[in-house]
Amino acid sequence: MTNVDDLNELAKRRGFFFPANDSYGGLAGFYVYGPAGAALKNNIENSWRAKFVIGEGHFEISTPTISPSPVFKASGHLDEFDDLLITCSTCETSHRADHLLKSQHTLSQSSDVSIQEFKKFLSMYSLTCPSCKNTLDDSTLREFNLMFATKVGPGSQTPGYLRPETAQGIFVEFPRLSSYARGKLPFGVAQIGTSYRNEISPRKGLTRLREFTQAELELFIHPTDLGPTIAPTTTKLPLYSISQQESNGTLESVTAREALDQNIISNRWIAYYLELSIDWYNSIGIDLNRFRYRQHMPNELAHYASDCWDAEVEIGGDWIEITGFAHRGNYDLSKHNTHSSDDFTMFIPLDEPQKKIQTNLNPDMEYFGPTFGKLAPEILSRIDEMAMSNSNIFDPPEINVDINGTIHSVLSKHLHPTTGETIINGEHILPHVIEPSFGIDRIIYSILAHAFHEDTIDGETRFLLSLPPSIAPTFVGIFPLLTRDNLDVIAQDMASNLRTSGFSVTHDESGSIGKRYRRQDEVGTPFCVTIDHQYFEDHTVTLRERNSATQIRIEANSIPTILESLRNGSSTFSDLV
Amino acid sequence: MTNVDDLNELAKRRGFFFPANDSYGGLAGFYVYGPAGAALKNNIENSWRAKFVIGEGHFEISTPTISPSPVFKASGHLDEFDDLLITCSTCETSHRADHLLKSQHTLSQSSDVSIQEFKKFLSMYSLTCPSCKNTLDDSTLREFNLMFATKVGPGSQTPGYLRPETAQGIFVEFPRLSSYARGKLPFGVAQIGTSYRNEISPRKGLTRLREFTQAELELFIHPTDLGPTIAPTTTKLPLYSISQQESNGTLESVTAREALDQNIISNRWIAYYLELSIDWYNSIGIDLNRFRYRQHMPNELAHYASDCWDAEVEIGGDWIEITGFAHRGNYDLSKHNTHSSDDFTMFIPLDEPQKKIQTNLNPDMEYFGPTFGKLAPEILSRIDEMAMSNSNIFDPPEINVDINGTIHSVLSKHLHPTTGETIINGEHILPHVIEPSFGIDRIIYSILAHAFHEDTIDGETRFLLSLPPSIAPTFVGIFPLLTRDNLDVIAQDMASNLRTSGFSVTHDESGSIGKRYRRQDEVGTPFCVTIDHQYFEDHTVTLRERNSATQIRIEANSIPTILESLRNGSSTFSDLV
Repeated sequence: MTNVDDLNELAKRRGFFFPANDSYGGLAGFYVYGPAGAALKNNIENSWRAKFVIGEGHFEISTPTISPSPVFKASGHLDEFDDLLITCSTCETSHRADHLLKSQHTLSQSSDVSIQEFKKFLSMYSLTCPSCKNTLDDSTLREFNLMFATKVGPGSQTPGYLRPETAQGIFVEFPRLSSYARGKLPFGVAQIGTSYRNEISPRKGLTRLREFTQAELELFIHPTDLGPTIAPTTTKLPLYSISQQESNGTLESVTAREALDQNIISNRWIAYYLELSIDWYNSIGIDLNRFRYRQHMPNELAHYASDCWDAEVEIGGDWIEITGFAHRGNYDLSKHNTHSSDDFTMFIPLDEPQKKIQTNLNPDMEYFGPTFGKLAPEILSRIDEMAMSNSNIFDPPEINVDINGTIHSVLSKHLHPTTGETIINGEHILPHVIEPSFGIDRIIYSILAHAFHEDTIDGETRFLLSLPPSIAPTFVGIFPLLTRDNLDVIAQDMASNLRTSGFSVTHDESGSIGKRYRRQDEVGTPFCVTIDHQYFEDHTVTLRERNSATQIRIEANSIPTILESLRNGSSTFSDLV
Repeated sequence: MTNVDDLNELAKRRGFFFPANDSYGGLAGFYVYGPAGAALKNNIENSWRAKFVIGEGHFEISTPTISPSPVFKASGHLDEFDDLLITCSTCETSHRADHLLKSQHTLSQSSDVSIQEFKKFLSMYSLTCPSCKNTLDDSTLREFNLMFATKVGPGSQTPGYLRPETAQGIFVEFPRLSSYARGKLPFGVAQIGTSYRNEISPRKGLTRLREFTQAELELFIHPTDLGPTIAPTTTKLPLYSISQQESNGTLESVTAREALDQNIISNRWIAYYLELSIDWYNSIGIDLNRFRYRQHMPNELAHYASDCWDAEVEIGGDWIEITGFAHRGNYDLSKHNTHSSDDFTMFIPLDEPQKKIQTNLNPDMEYFGPTFGKLAPEILSRIDEMAMSNSNIFDPPEINVDINGTIHSVLSKHLHPTTGETIINGEHILPHVIEPSFGIDRIIYSILAHAFHEDTIDGETRFLLSLPPSIAPTFVGIFPLLTRDNLDVIAQDMASNLRTSGFSVTHDESGSIGKRYRRQDEVGTPFCVTIDHQYFEDHTVTLRERNSATQIRIEANSIPTILESLRNGSSTFSDLV
């Protein structure tokens, strides 16, 4: 089990992450990625991009973090993106009401519950203030919107909000994006970027931040698209389904194909992404023995989502969510289609154009206008509909049309119906959305927690981060044994050359070689090269591998080629030993 | 000359950039990078990182975009980061006063001018409202702070601001960063990220955004560090110095070494970065014939900067700044050292520890305490100072100490001075800062403007983006000649395989081959592969190069290897022809 305190301490000491603005007392929920953390983050984002964007042939876009309020009015965030806030009338500290309910009564409640519903709970279960231990008064209960607000421009200033998710930027630009996809479904659009939530109680560390990084993919599919064919594979998914959760059962270890066949997963696209993603988690160093896919319980589902799974990892005995996989239906696009001035539908051509018999009413407008006034268009459109199902409606002298319960009698002679053929080439549809949404900060935290070990080398205890070489912040450490006899100059030149070839290099001259190895072990550097006096005899240097602490002697000139093959995965260290 | 309207139209049509939230009427100063633009931006950021961070062995960090107000109080942004706003009392539109002065009277004024100074200008030069043409009234003139404000947390809510530059995040974390550098100077810290300025009048396009991306490098140096040795090279810098600007002269084309020798550039570090950067601009496709380094005129210099150069490019007849190179002195660190609770100095060890003779006073505190009360420590410290310059001060029976004009007489017998040796190991200094600050959006805009051409191929006019292959959004287009006879399946498989190898691929089946080539020409894709029926005879496909529109036939199996060598630069298309 990870010792979370040791991990946070190492993260600070070695420059992975630490609270921001410490010199000014800090501000909860804001963290800095130091040199090691920022490099790790870049590597993870690039790896995600290679897998989920470039690898899948999808689009990536980058939208602003500030948007005007009508966007969030439409998306529902302005009205509904709230947490319930309860304030202690004695000590004036504020708390998230649902968290208190969960921690003080082990009752968990959907976050979509209303104030009124919540007050009912409070009439049964009293809550005490965690700060001053007084009983909390439910009259202070209020909805607290989690978006950060700001004002844009001089003068009257337009209200704007910092986005609470990257996804809305994709949805709101859908009309243009669908034109780039040239009207073909499915297509995927991804965004990696900063999102903001004004959390009532941010946590220490990277698991509940006020400013955080998401990597979201929105796959737009035809509403009738059931998903791709999922071929049988050997990749097992550790699934924690609703039924297993209800019976306090265990994980089911099945392939995506089996999970669909056994109806554990209902949607083929969701199954597709669970399988694609587990490969990726494995490649970046998530320990799959401390990993599961958990299905949302019915009371957890967001109102728009039909089936939802979370990827969760175990850290220090707790399970934390790192990715959500949701079928969002057409919820978001239909909202923007209704609220904005643009058309968010796509025109999908039929394989074969279809003929349709259509009636033209050719009405005498001198009769309809004066007789029915503003109701005329609605009456005509209703007759049009009636004619579709019954071609005989024009036979009687009068046609009775019911508009909101009132019967209007229309004289048939003022209609001169003709029929003609119309060719239907396609239809306008609102695509549905499959959304894998990755929390990059939590993924970084999980990787560090799972890579973090203590072991013994040569009788000495060391901290070790066994990060995969492909994502390690520093790929190689270059050390001169001593800072004299030109060993330092040779090391400096080697470091320079490797940097120009794109290797992330740490050049370290200070302290004993043992200490320098320990530093690199702690920061997860997979390889170290030491230049000692033997270089002058046979032009060799040592190459050391982090996990095994094994060293081999290598011709100095071949170091760039060997490191390149270790980096691109065409060889491993054990091939060299 | 670039036709800016054609460029903006192409940017929208081909997914480079376009105004955000158009479906809701938009909000000036916020843009979206579409699929082509986001890919280009990623490539440019990674290229910058390879050159200025990894290549130079510097740190990169990532700090929050929101910080609490004390940080910006200290940095000076809260009080001084303003533009002068003038509002028309007739039509109520707001304008930037300095821009009006420049456009209506071709007078340019430092942005640091005060309201009072500006009113003097207005008493001499009247300004008219660009919207309604009425004369503007100087009583509406006011300072408008350019930071976006927000509130953090529930309850009382802490005021926070969106950062106006990425640099402050680096300065404010300096105490921790210097510990990662293990106390050694120089060291560099970079950040690539979003910054925000609530511009009064954002421009159309990417040149004055309210939300934008910076890549900033802060190089921390010892105050006495004069910079590295600049070796003679063949790289010419197009310099537009103060004296040439004053005489409306021409660019001087000199090497960095020559510019230093001729005193055109005064600082070796600035010269170093101008030379390093021009290499990079060239590699990403800036046309060096439409490029210059312009020295800041004395009235343009920020109050903290001692010598400042801008990299500027020509677009549509205007010169726009894309990078600023500044010597910021210790301005920022000294501000934080004064305002925060932390120590922003670094301890720099001396090469040789120095001995210093020190006097210990050994005072009788039973005398000093009751006699001088709270003044005792100050009196003793003053005597300590006096003893350093005069070892005989203890000889007379009384010592007279002047504290704020009052003379205090101290009886010498209550002091029992001894002398001893102290070893001085080093000194605390505030490092100075050299800052190259790159505007990523403007660089993207410049690259597109310089890459944008119209030419004639086979008698047809085409738009062409001649982007360097290393930064092009899509590396290769894969086209089946027809969507039958399995050509489409072969193309699909080839596209899939290349994507898995990390190539950015467009797979396009729609329209004539000519149209598909035109689309890729417009988006800057350097290579296209077409699979036609000859594949079934000799297993070859065509490979087409964008600029020359030349096609060659290549063995299909060798496509990945050939593309890889074109990507990593080990071969060029002309090697293959």
